[in-house]
Amino acid sequence: MEQGLTLVTLGVRDLAASRAFYSDGLGWTATLDLPDEVVFYQVAPGVLLALFPVDDLAADAGHEVTWGTPFTLSRNVASEAEVTAAIEVARGIGATVLKEPQAAAFGGFHGFFADPDGHRWEVCYNPGLTADADGVMHFGPLPSSG
Amino acid sequence: MEQGLTLVTLGVRDLAASRAFYSDGLGWTATLDLPDEVVFYQVAPGVLLALFPVDDLAADAGHEVTWGTPFTLSRNVASEAEVTAAIEVARGIGATVLKEPQAAAFGGFHGFFADPDGHRWEVCYNPGLTADADGVMHFGPLPSSG
Repeated sequence: MEQGLTLVTLGVRDLAASRAFYSDGLGWTATLDLPDEVVFYQVAPGVLLALFPVDDLAADAGHEVTWGTPFTLSRNVASEAEVTAAIEVARGIGATVLKEPQAAAFGGFHGFFADPDGHRWEVCYNPGLTADADGVMHFGPLPSSG
Repeated sequence: MEQGLTLVTLGVRDLAASRAFYSDGLGWTATLDLPDEVVFYQVAPGVLLALFPVDDLAADAGHEVTWGTPFTLSRNVASEAEVTAAIEVARGIGATVLKEPQAAAFGGFHGFFADPDGHRWEVCYNPGLTADADGVMHFGPLPSSG
């Protein structure tokens, strides 16, 4: 399978509540929004994030779906101030803040919140991770590399 | 928070096993590979997928991590034959095939497998979903739209 990712589909308990969180709360614009069915948001070139009722997610996969939080979605931003502002927006729309904005072990600055289903988002300022004009990601020199 | 996604970080129980699955099995090339720490793969312009030991994921988030499968990652490919080939590759490297390649309810063709931690991947051929030259995603006419 060629390296790459096209869709991240999040199982949701209440599609209307999740749509309200992302579309109205965070202010995201949907690529496709089918009431009671699914909502898609463009989140990178060639990549969509989907909100999909969990029973439909399980039926689609032909496999039981269990709840849990074994992954983190991250949105990198350009400054510490943007991290703090984003966490305040999330708090203001009812998100549970999992980690207040603070210095991160890797040298940047970040905070975490949970969406209405507990899916975990990090808002991160990481000056050591940059994208070139083609979107190719580069890590800067590591602290240990001198 | 500006609409977008920079990182998808998967919690893993055994980083060496997960690296072997993605790097050796699927043949993906890492952007950064720090033994016993973390592995990053570029999966779209401006987007990385990370494999991160689950205890570190929890410590980073300052929050308990629980196992579960409430999300699906999808890789869209260009034909039904590519779906079938990708599922066979996954099976050949020890993945559990969750759904054999077959016609999908939305009109395309897909199959599903689980990575070593149970994280669910869909391999999908969906002629109704296309990306333009800038990576902007478009859904074709829906079956119900006549």
